[in-house]
Amino acid sequence: MSAGTDRRESSAASDLLSAEDLRARLLAVGHERYHHKHPFHLLMHEGKLTRHQLQAWALNRYYYQSIIPIKDSIILSRSGDPEFRRAWRKRILDHDGAEGEPGGIEKWIRLAEATGLEADSVTAGRGILPAVRYAVDAYLDLVRERSFLEAVASSLTELFSRDLISLRIGALRQHYPWLESGLMYFTARLSQAPEDAAFALDWVTRHACTREQQDAAIAALSAKCDILWAQLDAIYYAYVQPGWPPPGALPAEAS
Amino acid sequence: MSAGTDRRESSAASDLLSAEDLRARLLAVGHERYHHKHPFHLLMHEGKLTRHQLQAWALNRYYYQSIIPIKDSIILSRSGDPEFRRAWRKRILDHDGAEGEPGGIEKWIRLAEATGLEADSVTAGRGILPAVRYAVDAYLDLVRERSFLEAVASSLTELFSRDLISLRIGALRQHYPWLESGLMYFTARLSQAPEDAAFALDWVTRHACTREQQDAAIAALSAKCDILWAQLDAIYYAYVQPGWPPPGALPAEAS
Repeated sequence: MSAGTDRRESSAASDLLSAEDLRARLLAVGHERYHHKHPFHLLMHEGKLTRHQLQAWALNRYYYQSIIPIKDSIILSRSGDPEFRRAWRKRILDHDGAEGEPGGIEKWIRLAEATGLEADSVTAGRGILPAVRYAVDAYLDLVRERSFLEAVASSLTELFSRDLISLRIGALRQHYPWLESGLMYFTARLSQAPEDAAFALDWVTRHACTREQQDAAIAALSAKCDILWAQLDAIYYAYVQPGWPPPGALPAEAS
Repeated sequence: MSAGTDRRESSAASDLLSAEDLRARLLAVGHERYHHKHPFHLLMHEGKLTRHQLQAWALNRYYYQSIIPIKDSIILSRSGDPEFRRAWRKRILDHDGAEGEPGGIEKWIRLAEATGLEADSVTAGRGILPAVRYAVDAYLDLVRERSFLEAVASSLTELFSRDLISLRIGALRQHYPWLESGLMYFTARLSQAPEDAAFALDWVTRHACTREQQDAAIAALSAKCDILWAQLDAIYYAYVQPGWPPPGALPAEAS
């Protein structure tokens, strides 16, 4: 079925998911694969991570944060629709900030500093796990090389981030009070992420006009969940489970 | 310093490494970072892996094998020198084979079959770990996007593969005799890899004409070592160390 087939004329129209069913399928992907279930997050929320493990998380996750505006600029660059671009560009402002108004990246650096890292060493990217780099770079490949619909759909992990972040803010305050000065990243995301997710979900629902496109959107969300999950795997195994960071990565804590 | 600066006229000529020093630096990278030291390989050579763990290795490593001719075709496509291309194309023949002459990919499928996997499920790529995909795809990005010298230098891990493979063939025969029918991949590589490595080492030595280029070549070899290491990390942590393959990957062995 070609991308241009109108749903009402398609012989496979009976296969098309309703907007509600598509939404339910997307939510089911998040339920199964979003990183809220990752053991690293479970340990974090139970207060069982050391400061060093939180450092490793803040350092590695910074690499992800740092490419988000690049990812969103790629998506912007692929849209020919000024209305879409006006809605989407907000994400770039949210992450890059403005004069006197720190964006998400700067807030993440504050979080990394609260764990005890130097801002310079974080932004220099020294000691980031290669596996984290590969996963994050795979996200850039996805939004660059897959269909525009899939690029947009991959952002739908934000449907699930509000619940995770509210849980996290409480848990971090309770178990790691010394992180307090670094929490503004999360408080900002509490309102930003649901707004962005609502726009993207509406857009995907309206533009996935064939069952193939709907399936591609679901698969793109699943692929994005893999990318988030793989980052935590790399951090968990290098710094939590007795393991070994590869040569050149932030060393394990001296015991 | 520009790429075209002649070493004899450069003001930084004293910094230039001699061919012997460059070679020593490249060997030192392999000594420190090549995956012969990875704990997954150590367990393999001690006979401590289960058939299921070897299956996970054969399945995941297949993805790496499957892109090698693509990687070499990209390198080929970036060379304007027929002599270079004539030397390099041998690699594509080695991996893709010819009528009645199985190449490396087909031999790897025989290895996977010897572990008990179906050829079809291997080539379909179902159950491959996302982290392995990201690492392997990062290799394609490297040869596509970095300088041509770096693309060629990244192949220099073959300098170290002969020793690893000869050790492995003996260990596999001793500890996993049921793998015998799958070993022809390795026996072929014993002669192919050193030939390829000798050509590439000579080429890199002659074409890294500035210290910056020499350093870039060393860094590219190091980056390639990271790519190999990260694949084994993913396999080790999903299937050896009590852990969890991500949703959708080959499940852990039922206990």
